[in-house]
Amino acid sequence: MDFRDIDGPTRREMIGGAAALGAGAALVQPAALFAEAGSLADIRKAAEAGKEASIKRIRDWIALPSIAAEDRNMPEGAAYFAQLARDAGFSNVEVVPTDGHPGVFGTLDVGAPRTLGLYFMYDVKQYDPAEWSSPPLEGRLGEREGLGTVMLGRGSANHKGPEATFLAALHAIRAAGRKLPVNLVLICEGEEEIGSPHIHQLVTKPNVLAAFRKCDGVFMPTCLQDLEGGATIELGAKGIIELELVASGEKWGRGPKKDIHSSLKAIVDSPAWRLVQALQTLVTPDGNKPAIDGWFENVRLLTENEKKMIREGIKHTNEARMKENLGVPHWVDDLSLEDAMVRLMQDPTVNIEGLVAGYTGPGGKTILPGRAVAKLDFRLVPNQTRAEAVKKLRAHLDKRGFKDVEMNVSGGYDPTETDPNSRLIRAEIATYKKLGVRPNISVRLAGSWPGGSFTQPPVSQPVGRFGLGTGGNAHAPDEYLLIDSTNPKVAGIVDATMGYAEFLYTFASIK
Amino acid sequence: MDFRDIDGPTRREMIGGAAALGAGAALVQPAALFAEAGSLADIRKAAEAGKEASIKRIRDWIALPSIAAEDRNMPEGAAYFAQLARDAGFSNVEVVPTDGHPGVFGTLDVGAPRTLGLYFMYDVKQYDPAEWSSPPLEGRLGEREGLGTVMLGRGSANHKGPEATFLAALHAIRAAGRKLPVNLVLICEGEEEIGSPHIHQLVTKPNVLAAFRKCDGVFMPTCLQDLEGGATIELGAKGIIELELVASGEKWGRGPKKDIHSSLKAIVDSPAWRLVQALQTLVTPDGNKPAIDGWFENVRLLTENEKKMIREGIKHTNEARMKENLGVPHWVDDLSLEDAMVRLMQDPTVNIEGLVAGYTGPGGKTILPGRAVAKLDFRLVPNQTRAEAVKKLRAHLDKRGFKDVEMNVSGGYDPTETDPNSRLIRAEIATYKKLGVRPNISVRLAGSWPGGSFTQPPVSQPVGRFGLGTGGNAHAPDEYLLIDSTNPKVAGIVDATMGYAEFLYTFASIK
Repeated sequence: MDFRDIDGPTRREMIGGAAALGAGAALVQPAALFAEAGSLADIRKAAEAGKEASIKRIRDWIALPSIAAEDRNMPEGAAYFAQLARDAGFSNVEVVPTDGHPGVFGTLDVGAPRTLGLYFMYDVKQYDPAEWSSPPLEGRLGEREGLGTVMLGRGSANHKGPEATFLAALHAIRAAGRKLPVNLVLICEGEEEIGSPHIHQLVTKPNVLAAFRKCDGVFMPTCLQDLEGGATIELGAKGIIELELVASGEKWGRGPKKDIHSSLKAIVDSPAWRLVQALQTLVTPDGNKPAIDGWFENVRLLTENEKKMIREGIKHTNEARMKENLGVPHWVDDLSLEDAMVRLMQDPTVNIEGLVAGYTGPGGKTILPGRAVAKLDFRLVPNQTRAEAVKKLRAHLDKRGFKDVEMNVSGGYDPTETDPNSRLIRAEIATYKKLGVRPNISVRLAGSWPGGSFTQPPVSQPVGRFGLGTGGNAHAPDEYLLIDSTNPKVAGIVDATMGYAEFLYTFASIK
Repeated sequence: MDFRDIDGPTRREMIGGAAALGAGAALVQPAALFAEAGSLADIRKAAEAGKEASIKRIRDWIALPSIAAEDRNMPEGAAYFAQLARDAGFSNVEVVPTDGHPGVFGTLDVGAPRTLGLYFMYDVKQYDPAEWSSPPLEGRLGEREGLGTVMLGRGSANHKGPEATFLAALHAIRAAGRKLPVNLVLICEGEEEIGSPHIHQLVTKPNVLAAFRKCDGVFMPTCLQDLEGGATIELGAKGIIELELVASGEKWGRGPKKDIHSSLKAIVDSPAWRLVQALQTLVTPDGNKPAIDGWFENVRLLTENEKKMIREGIKHTNEARMKENLGVPHWVDDLSLEDAMVRLMQDPTVNIEGLVAGYTGPGGKTILPGRAVAKLDFRLVPNQTRAEAVKKLRAHLDKRGFKDVEMNVSGGYDPTETDPNSRLIRAEIATYKKLGVRPNISVRLAGSWPGGSFTQPPVSQPVGRFGLGTGGNAHAPDEYLLIDSTNPKVAGIVDATMGYAEFLYTFASIK
């Protein structure tokens, strides 16, 4: 749903694990090594030859935005991706209906001993062209200081760009006359940006489930490099619930059913005040800690080992720059960086994404609104579950007399954890090291993604994200993907393609 | 600012004083009497002859919307009204600059013993043509069930229609070859809909102040009849402050300066939560009573006489219909109608007009907003003052550590009280009675209007509103003014014109 930051690589690293900001250049090998490493010279040649086709593949896909929240181009987006998968060599590709929008399933069985699972998404976030410096559906190229040539477009980084780059690796391997070193199993959903409400239906479809259970791990292509060339490997992610709390005269049976003149406040109850009163029970008075009954019951605190991992991860972090990038002068409770990063990884959150009630235009309007809405997200940590959290929140409100305050849950999923000793994670680490990229091991992503759908039964696979290259402004205007890098520490699109190829060979051969 | 309701005459009466809803027809003389009453047959003839010109005057004025909140047509609106005033016989008409938008001042001195003050406004409320059934600037005529022919247009009821109708009375008196029975002093402001922030500058300009101090009262033309033919006379109005409370990372020095990724809530303070926590201190837990330190210190409770007036006023009120019209099943605290009406007149309020923070579109967006805004209005009762209330609110927030929470006061004014024995009110009552209209004496308007600018020093005049006819949907789509009445109890535009003429003669002659 939102495992990309909204401001590009520097901030993303912080969210991903407080890792690489300000890391010393001495740790990183020159980017020229991207080209030397491995024994895949024939594939590299094919990847270079296929570069223009690869750029076109991303650009053409960007031109068809599928937006689940707007029910826009959903069947079209599924059909389009199904064809992309077939073109890359997948067989038995099928569009899989759900109670929501369809997904796409396919396999690429080369008879290899090992099988790797792939999680893709074909949907993108909403956008407002007026806020963009470049038309969001045209995938134009531009220059970005300190990075190089980037492609601007909705989905370029999140996630069409990295996904299409992975497909480019399959094209290059085939063009080099090679057989894939692993079998692939692919699921692509169209509801990632609305919280993956039907991914469970996709992964538990019998033929899909059977295919995924044969895997040795499931990964999502992404572009995780920071500007110093490191790349984060997350050993899990927080879960999330997104919902609206709605107070209304309609449901309450008090207050007005619609907006009325504000002078009537003297004798009419106010749904907006009711919402405020319900909200303030959810957190401590400083707004920083969940205060929902029983919320911490199943929260697993970080182990000493995990805290040590965090301390390692922030060794090279420039805290001042991080704060400046975020526009945040102080962490909560004036925590030190180390304590803040432990808090970031360890603590569940209750966040107000938005408030909407009554008159929202310029100036004022003397009305007593009949309805007030708070948009909230709740980040969950192991061993909380989405179902538990929804139930506890409802009980908390009910107990305080807010039975009428509606909870419209729009999406979410459980937290995810993956064993650092799983073959998937070891292959990720080994590939990064081979390519001269410093792996930053992160306890977990403080954001969320639907990886839990794979780690939990019945799929029960390790999951991870992997990818060279970088991009930014996901969910924001001027989203971009790095195409040609001028930063020797960060991969452009051909090196990112080769990163996936290397990963497949490493995954196939690692013990 | 909002002394008209948003739903037409039935609701207005409730706001104005819980008066006439469901009043028995037996109390009311037939509307034919509008034509008989008085000895102004020559003026009526002129008013009838001038009817089309009168309609055109309103329509042409509606075509030039002056909207202070949007800084739209403000100098143009002042100049336009100045010409309307000159056309109606005012001399020395001047556009008076302020630190905000200009007003218009003029006098009409006929050497009469008595002088009447007039308060006009030339601005109108914002509108969205898409919500209207008729173009809001075209002043088209249409039929309204139970009323007759109405003119639809922004400002038709609030307040261009009644004001232009008063000017029509001056035209008719002149056309009949008569001299006015009183001198007139006129001020017209352009910022009524944003809370009259500069009216004090207008009324204290030396020549304006000198002219108003010679008056025997100041009145505003309006159309105050209910569907049973009664008309409300308010002996005052609540005051108001309108403001935004703004919590922001920028001012706070904590939290983010702009929207950031919501996963960071674990380590970054939230201005939205801060706003919620600040808000909830302002009212009792049920949201129904101000809880601001010292708020009730100067509140004058209603006298037994005033409560008796309220009991009189609700004798004919159909409470069930009132609640149904409002969409409100219960008054606060399940009060009886009588107790609710006492509360309506007597109590100050703290109301949330609107809440705006972060993401406000459909679904969710995982951000931690850098800024959160609550739009509030505070109704004030005698003897609270606007200045006192602003100061106490600031002190209340400061004391609780919310010094950074900004208070952007956009408008407001003190409560108003007028002596029921003043010549102005006695003339209003006498005129209504003469015309067969039942006067509903209301303790005060639960809404607000800038009458306090005239009742207080240095002007120190009784103020009141007066006018036959009706209209509705002020501040809302399809605002309308009754032109030709099919309801024998409610005046159309010619009878409303004659109502003003009668009032001027009554005011001139009453002891």
